[in-house]
Amino acid sequence: MAAMPYPVGTVANSEGHLEIAGCDVVDLAERFGTPSYVFSVPEMRNRARAYVDAFSSRTDEFEVLYASKALPVTAAYRLFAEEGLSVDVASGGELTMALAAGYDPSLIYMHGNNKTDAELKLADEAGVGHLILDSFDEIDRCERVLSRRQDVMIRVTPGIEPSTHTYVQTGQLDSKFGFGLEDGSAERAIRRVLASPALNLVGLHFHIGSQIFETEPFRLAVQSLAELQGDWCRMLDVGGGLGISYETEDEPPKIESYVDMKIEAVREFFGREVKILIEPGRSLVGNAGVTIYTVGTIKEIPGIRTYLSVDGGMSENLRPMLYNAKYEAAIANRAGRPAETVTTIAGSHCESGDILVRDVALADPQVGDILITPATGAYGHAMANNYNGMPRPPVIFCEDGEAKVVVRRETWDDLLARDA
Amino acid sequence: MAAMPYPVGTVANSEGHLEIAGCDVVDLAERFGTPSYVFSVPEMRNRARAYVDAFSSRTDEFEVLYASKALPVTAAYRLFAEEGLSVDVASGGELTMALAAGYDPSLIYMHGNNKTDAELKLADEAGVGHLILDSFDEIDRCERVLSRRQDVMIRVTPGIEPSTHTYVQTGQLDSKFGFGLEDGSAERAIRRVLASPALNLVGLHFHIGSQIFETEPFRLAVQSLAELQGDWCRMLDVGGGLGISYETEDEPPKIESYVDMKIEAVREFFGREVKILIEPGRSLVGNAGVTIYTVGTIKEIPGIRTYLSVDGGMSENLRPMLYNAKYEAAIANRAGRPAETVTTIAGSHCESGDILVRDVALADPQVGDILITPATGAYGHAMANNYNGMPRPPVIFCEDGEAKVVVRRETWDDLLARDA
Repeated sequence: MAAMPYPVGTVANSEGHLEIAGCDVVDLAERFGTPSYVFSVPEMRNRARAYVDAFSSRTDEFEVLYASKALPVTAAYRLFAEEGLSVDVASGGELTMALAAGYDPSLIYMHGNNKTDAELKLADEAGVGHLILDSFDEIDRCERVLSRRQDVMIRVTPGIEPSTHTYVQTGQLDSKFGFGLEDGSAERAIRRVLASPALNLVGLHFHIGSQIFETEPFRLAVQSLAELQGDWCRMLDVGGGLGISYETEDEPPKIESYVDMKIEAVREFFGREVKILIEPGRSLVGNAGVTIYTVGTIKEIPGIRTYLSVDGGMSENLRPMLYNAKYEAAIANRAGRPAETVTTIAGSHCESGDILVRDVALADPQVGDILITPATGAYGHAMANNYNGMPRPPVIFCEDGEAKVVVRRETWDDLLARDA
Repeated sequence: MAAMPYPVGTVANSEGHLEIAGCDVVDLAERFGTPSYVFSVPEMRNRARAYVDAFSSRTDEFEVLYASKALPVTAAYRLFAEEGLSVDVASGGELTMALAAGYDPSLIYMHGNNKTDAELKLADEAGVGHLILDSFDEIDRCERVLSRRQDVMIRVTPGIEPSTHTYVQTGQLDSKFGFGLEDGSAERAIRRVLASPALNLVGLHFHIGSQIFETEPFRLAVQSLAELQGDWCRMLDVGGGLGISYETEDEPPKIESYVDMKIEAVREFFGREVKILIEPGRSLVGNAGVTIYTVGTIKEIPGIRTYLSVDGGMSENLRPMLYNAKYEAAIANRAGRPAETVTTIAGSHCESGDILVRDVALADPQVGDILITPATGAYGHAMANNYNGMPRPPVIFCEDGEAKVVVRRETWDDLLARDA
């Protein structure tokens, strides 16, 4: 077992149960119920350290930002703060969580294509280190709302289209994000901000998309931005986007080589003085998290398909429905046994599209088994919803055989909490 | 104005503002903030009455069930209870909401392809009128968990594939739902349940899918189920699925003709004694609800596209991203003015796929305007999530010029509420 999509160190224990960070997954299901999001704390720490180490062996001029939209959980913000990471927030809500986790405001970078007055005021009051400006309307709004001179960067859309799902391509000119390079908007924005007494321009930002396995698009993007730099340009934020292994056959670049490539590209086109910022999210938490379920029903349609239904679905993992994302799955209480029964894993929602994994081979699945889907650490909890009145699962952090609930399970009564 | 997708009676008032159920939408935005879900109470009541009237003019043997997954809000359950509707719930969460609204448990029908022990116990304790059985595993579970003899129906998948999105096609044999007709499962399930002392079989259920505009698939489904009937078959639940008008050019069947067709098909193939159950959800609430936003930024990319960003997006309306659903939009504070500026309406989320409406003509949109998207009453609030730390909008019920918040807005601090 312990294939690529799982946290490093995932093993089958002597009872034939999967163990994550020393915690028996079947025990976790008994103690905390299902469905639950289960994370390996060492996996998150090790990945954060891999980024920091890859940079620090080559330069002092860097900052690693946790792109917290992947897993906006107070305990995750706290963990990455402990690892010395800065943080990227994309809304007032994420900013609130970062502050609640005790993040030093000067280490917070705030994104968003449509920051509201209320969000800018919150950032201003908190003393957020940097705003990443996304539009001319936002520049106007900053000048109206902010009470102090604010360090800012400008988000540029470099006109690069990497191979990934169009939903998470973000660098093309035809984008809601940022200032276009080709149409001269980026240059105009720089002039506009440099002339503004309220704003202190310190750098540029770009992000060409997520879950990208190629490295060349990054280099092209850096090259294309080089024409914009001036004395004011002390930092270049090269975004995030490193892919993870959702399935065993996926082969994303290693963090080390990915960082090397970023450093080389920036050095080549921006020189040695510019500080490099990077924004990993998915690659810090995606493979650190799994989701566990209880198998509820098994329906065999002779000659057609076997449906196995679990006690969750599109309410806690939207990615299969939203992006046609593929996942692996296994029976956690029958680890290491041959997986020979091809099944389609359905959720409990009133919708045929509520399919988590299609045609996956499982080890003799039975009602009552604990099913596990790896690589669900990013954008699972983040997009969780109450469709069909389904309470959202808890988030459980595991380390050295100890499990701790960091976000409790919703209850049925929680669904009434906002009734007025 | 007042095009088809809007609640009947939506008008432009003397200030050029849209008015819904007598409430000025621009006033609502000022009082309650944006984004907000706004509902016309009369529209919901009138649609419920249209169903009841269409049946009662032709038969006494019917029951209209509110398919509450479309808008699981306590106040909506209460409203449809007042209108004499029964209710269909698809989980313990929806059951909890129906009970909190004061629904007579005997009027509750409980669905679900994977009801858990906890959900069956909750139903048992509450005295839920009917369970709709979905699998052999569930029959076993009922016999193990239930404390009293339970009236049940059997869900049959008749093998009909209507023209709709595959995610919401539910009647085909290759389905996670119900017992297949073609493979003999339905007949075996009937024999199994009739022999069970714990279960009292009273009818059959089928549901071939949602947002369907044709009527012929229903007739075929009823015909195909006829071979299963016996003396025990006192009721036939023909599901839901009536489409609504998302865009002005959509022409769904009228409730009256839709009900007529259902009655005729059941009378033809099941005789006059069988009680007809119907499960409208979307067609009760979809056109009754709109979503209002504030325009935050307008980004013109010359020769390519103009992006208009609002203070919401895929966190409060997932349907464009999930089903490629199309919506209309208008500037609520410039109603009746010519809509000539073609824009693409983006949300505030860190994702390029976060587009609510593509290439829609608006009346001279400006930052600060109130934008409205009609036909967002169903599956908007139901699927709302906190992606990017976005608080979920309030639900506001409007009637005779009075607006009432029935679900309050989430706050940023609510995002920390489950931290352990």
